Amino acid sequence: MGNWEENVRKVVPYVPGEQPKMDNLIKLNTNENPYPPSPKVLEAKLDMSRLKLYPDPAADMLVSAIADYHGVDKSRVFVGVGSDDVLAMSFMSFFNSDKAILFPDVTYSFYDVWADMLHIPYKTVPLDEDYRIRPEDYKCGNGGVIFPNPNAPTGISLPLESVREIIEANRDVVVIVDEAYVDFGGETALPLTDEYDNLLVVRTFSKSRSMAGIRIGYAIGQEKLIKYLSDVKYSYNSYTMNMPSIILGTASIADEEYFREQVAKVVATRERTTKALEELGFKVLPSKANFVFASHKEKPAKEIFTAARERGIILRYFDRPRTDDFLRITIGTDEEMDSFIEFLKDFV
Amino acid sequence: MGNWEENVRKVVPYVPGEQPKMDNLIKLNTNENPYPPSPKVLEAKLDMSRLKLYPDPAADMLVSAIADYHGVDKSRVFVGVGSDDVLAMSFMSFFNSDKAILFPDVTYSFYDVWADMLHIPYKTVPLDEDYRIRPEDYKCGNGGVIFPNPNAPTGISLPLESVREIIEANRDVVVIVDEAYVDFGGETALPLTDEYDNLLVVRTFSKSRSMAGIRIGYAIGQEKLIKYLSDVKYSYNSYTMNMPSIILGTASIADEEYFREQVAKVVATRERTTKALEELGFKVLPSKANFVFASHKEKPAKEIFTAARERGIILRYFDRPRTDDFLRITIGTDEEMDSFIEFLKDFV
Repeated sequence: MGNWEENVRKVVPYVPGEQPKMDNLIKLNTNENPYPPSPKVLEAKLDMSRLKLYPDPAADMLVSAIADYHGVDKSRVFVGVGSDDVLAMSFMSFFNSDKAILFPDVTYSFYDVWADMLHIPYKTVPLDEDYRIRPEDYKCGNGGVIFPNPNAPTGISLPLESVREIIEANRDVVVIVDEAYVDFGGETALPLTDEYDNLLVVRTFSKSRSMAGIRIGYAIGQEKLIKYLSDVKYSYNSYTMNMPSIILGTASIADEEYFREQVAKVVATRERTTKALEELGFKVLPSKANFVFASHKEKPAKEIFTAARERGIILRYFDRPRTDDFLRITIGTDEEMDSFIEFLKDFV
Repeated sequence: MGNWEENVRKVVPYVPGEQPKMDNLIKLNTNENPYPPSPKVLEAKLDMSRLKLYPDPAADMLVSAIADYHGVDKSRVFVGVGSDDVLAMSFMSFFNSDKAILFPDVTYSFYDVWADMLHIPYKTVPLDEDYRIRPEDYKCGNGGVIFPNPNAPTGISLPLESVREIIEANRDVVVIVDEAYVDFGGETALPLTDEYDNLLVVRTFSKSRSMAGIRIGYAIGQEKLIKYLSDVKYSYNSYTMNMPSIILGTASIADEEYFREQVAKVVATRERTTKALEELGFKVLPSKANFVFASHKEKPAKEIFTAARERGIILRYFDRPRTDDFLRITIGTDEEMDSFIEFLKDFV
């Protein structure tokens, strides 16, 4: 090891869900939306000659569209390169206490990665035996709170009054509610941002807007919170949102009808899939997301995962305590889910 | 101030060069390329329906194109959202010493911003009286070294042997050479990455490739250095390069002929502009970049800046010690520079 390596930040990198390059794959492993983005996105015109210019650092067109959509002032909206960028920047901006930040033991697997990388102390809070977040567990002194709602990979949604209870108990730190999946049936905490200056709600275009490939995430909070976040962002990289993101993201927001339709389709398929899984002997956690988290009475999850893969069906399996009996199954099209259920009928 | 604000990272944000929304503007303030990207970029087909999927986190197509272009293995290439992203990530990865990192007193204005934000101690090293980097000034103990070559906003290029001298004297830390402008006539340190495992060379698509709007930067170093950087990147945000970036960046690399032609045009215009400025009483630092840094014998730079703005010509003025007599003038088209020179003939 050269001496220069002594001062290198050494991390155990996050391993993203696999993106296998096989044909005829049924890809139910990364919670992508099975439907394409809005026709307004597909037909949007990008003037590539404009690429010679820097994009608007404030991404004003996109920020204004998001602000109008949610009925808030644009000073209350922050955009980033996917919600991962927004969340990582939020960790960096808001979690600078010596006290541990809190998040569930079973949750989005990036939270501990960011905490480790940024040297932020953290403590995981066990979900209850039904895999639910208990607000009373978040009432001890801490350096900040973050949780997804609905939670991932459980899919379980926390009622708004419980979210409020957590915020009320943590007025001295920033509370981040990661609403990546909320459009599929959860209750949003956005209205609470009017009341609480320490609440940040984070959203993404990757799930309900079928635009994982464009990398857009955003956060909404009170102006002061957004200003702190923007200051850190501008100190890091002023121009993160490229021209195609700004144009195509704005086009997506403009098509509410298509958005509602395809979200409703995913939700209907989720309900149908849940029923079919239950009939096959699965326990399925009650999901308000675009995936279900399911455990079979007899067959070990890992075996199902491996057998499915051999049939070209890719699921997500988390080989960790409390989750190693479960499979996380992204909701695809009806046809994809039918193929998956057919496979299960053979296998279990 | 709410108690939650105590643990907020407070920074003085970087202020990017203005992007005024006026018509008929001659925009010579942010070192953009006046020519559009390659026709291969303009005509590239983007299949927007693919946006529903996450992009390849390794951006393999783009990374491979860059690796082939420079004749290195793809394990030696790192890509990010503009060179600002690559550089900020490099600061975070490599500059973790208690000793101060070193960079010139007159240089890219983001270095001290990143150091402040990431709590990295730093010391600025004065350029000599001719605004040149002196290798001997970088031979004291430090936590890392970074400089642009050509330097900005001076445009002055450091000979390769001087770059080597700096690296040789700093084998115990990481040395970053920021080659944002090198294609316009500088000497690249890329060949030295074969010899030195602590050298990172950073490039951008924003200047010579006319693609500031797409946000692509990259770094080349030995595999071990790139692996450390990638680990931090994957711990921060796995999917930073969106689908349009990957496709359009690859298309740009494929068109070497156009690339050389338009770079040659910018260089020719720079030389012509330099001569015209000198004839009008300007001292022009010898530039190997797509801008010139010039100071008039009599007229204060700030006055010229303000008068030019009134005529719709936007320049960059840095109101700081050692640079407040200068204007940074981006090289536009011949027509744009003619208009600028006409304005100066009236004014000075």
